[in-house]
Amino acid sequence: MPLVNHVTIPKATVARLPLYLQCLQSMADAEITVSSETLAQLANLNPAKVRKDLSYLGSHGVRGVGYDRLHLCLQIKRELGLVEAWPVVIVGVGNLGSALANYGGFGAAGFSIAGIYDADPKKVGTVVDEHVVQSFDELPADVRRKKIAMAIITTPAGAAQEVADVLIAAGITSILNFAPAVLQTPEGVECRHVDLATELQILSYYQARQA
Amino acid sequence: MPLVNHVTIPKATVARLPLYLQCLQSMADAEITVSSETLAQLANLNPAKVRKDLSYLGSHGVRGVGYDRLHLCLQIKRELGLVEAWPVVIVGVGNLGSALANYGGFGAAGFSIAGIYDADPKKVGTVVDEHVVQSFDELPADVRRKKIAMAIITTPAGAAQEVADVLIAAGITSILNFAPAVLQTPEGVECRHVDLATELQILSYYQARQA
Repeated sequence: MPLVNHVTIPKATVARLPLYLQCLQSMADAEITVSSETLAQLANLNPAKVRKDLSYLGSHGVRGVGYDRLHLCLQIKRELGLVEAWPVVIVGVGNLGSALANYGGFGAAGFSIAGIYDADPKKVGTVVDEHVVQSFDELPADVRRKKIAMAIITTPAGAAQEVADVLIAAGITSILNFAPAVLQTPEGVECRHVDLATELQILSYYQARQA
Repeated sequence: MPLVNHVTIPKATVARLPLYLQCLQSMADAEITVSSETLAQLANLNPAKVRKDLSYLGSHGVRGVGYDRLHLCLQIKRELGLVEAWPVVIVGVGNLGSALANYGGFGAAGFSIAGIYDADPKKVGTVVDEHVVQSFDELPADVRRKKIAMAIITTPAGAAQEVADVLIAAGITSILNFAPAVLQTPEGVECRHVDLATELQILSYYQARQA
C-alpha cells in the first residue's frame, strides 16, 4: 500500500532548508508569523520559490498572514532529522579539523562531536578545545559501540579515500568531506564534498565575467 | 549585434566545473584522452550530464575516443577565469581564518592570499603561516590600492554584515562567507555562503531517512 503524504523533497529544496531555519531563528522572538516575502528577502530568494519549497513540508501559510514562525522552525527541524543531536566524529586534526572541533555552531545546529581522531602518534593525546585527540586505530570500535553514523574528513587528500573506506566498513553512512579529493562511496552512503578552493573557483567564474 | 558563441552557462554547471577540473588533474599524466564515462565515474555523476555540461564549453569529444584531457583542463580554467591568480583577502583570523590562511590548496586552485585582517588589536601583528595579521582599519585602502576583488569572511556571525558592507564599499565584488549569517549584498556583488553546520544538516536529512 503506498504511503500517503510521504513526499520526496527535491535535493535543491533540501539544500535550502537549513538556510530557511537559520533565517527564521535569526528573527526577533516577538515575530509570531512570517510572510514568504520576508523569508525570501532574508534568504536572498524569490517568494514564489520559498512558497514552493515550504509546500513540500505541507506548509502553505495563510493568505495575508503568512506562516507561524515557530511551527515552521519545528517542521523544518523534523524534516532535517534534527530532533535529537547526531553524534559526529572528525578524522584528521590539522588546522581545519581543529577549527571544526572548536566550532561552536554544531551544538545549536543539532550535532555533538563524539570524538576527534588522527593517525599521527604525536597528535594523539593532545587536547583541542575540550576534545582529546584519539588514535585512528581506535575509531572503528568507537563508531560501532556508540552507533555513530556521521563523520567529517579533514585529512590530506592522499589519505581521504582510505579513511573513508575504514569509516564505511565501521558503519558510517554519512560523510562530510573537506579533503580536496573525490571519494568513491558505495550505494547507501551519502557523501557531501566541501572544497574550500572549489567555492572560490565558482566565485571566480562570476568575477571574471564582471571584469 | 548579438554575440555568437557567447553561451550563458547554467549555475549548476558552473558549480560542477571545479569538480571536473579536479578529476582531470587527478588523472595520470600519461592519459591523453578521457571518455565522458571515465570522467562521470570519477565525479560520481552520469555520463549524459557530463557531456551536457561540457557541451556548454563548446567541447563535444570524439565518439569512441573522448576528450583531449589537457585541452579540456585549459577550457575549464579559462571558463572559470583561472588564467591568472586572483588575490584574495581573509577577514577574521579565528580558528577557521587561520586554517584558511594555512590552507595550501589556494595556490594550485588559482588564488593567492593578498592579506589577512582582524579587528582585534591583540591579533594584529601576529603571524599565521607566512602572513602578518593586519588591522581591519587598513583593509579599505589596501583593497583599493591592490585592486582586490575577492574576499573571504571568517568573522563571528554578528560582525559579518558590517564587514561585508566595508568590503563592498572598498570595491570587493565577490565574497565567500563562512560566518553563520545570511548577508544582504547589492546587485553586482556575488556572495557565496559556506556554513559548516548547514552542510551537516543537509546530510542529516538523508541520514534520518536511512535510520
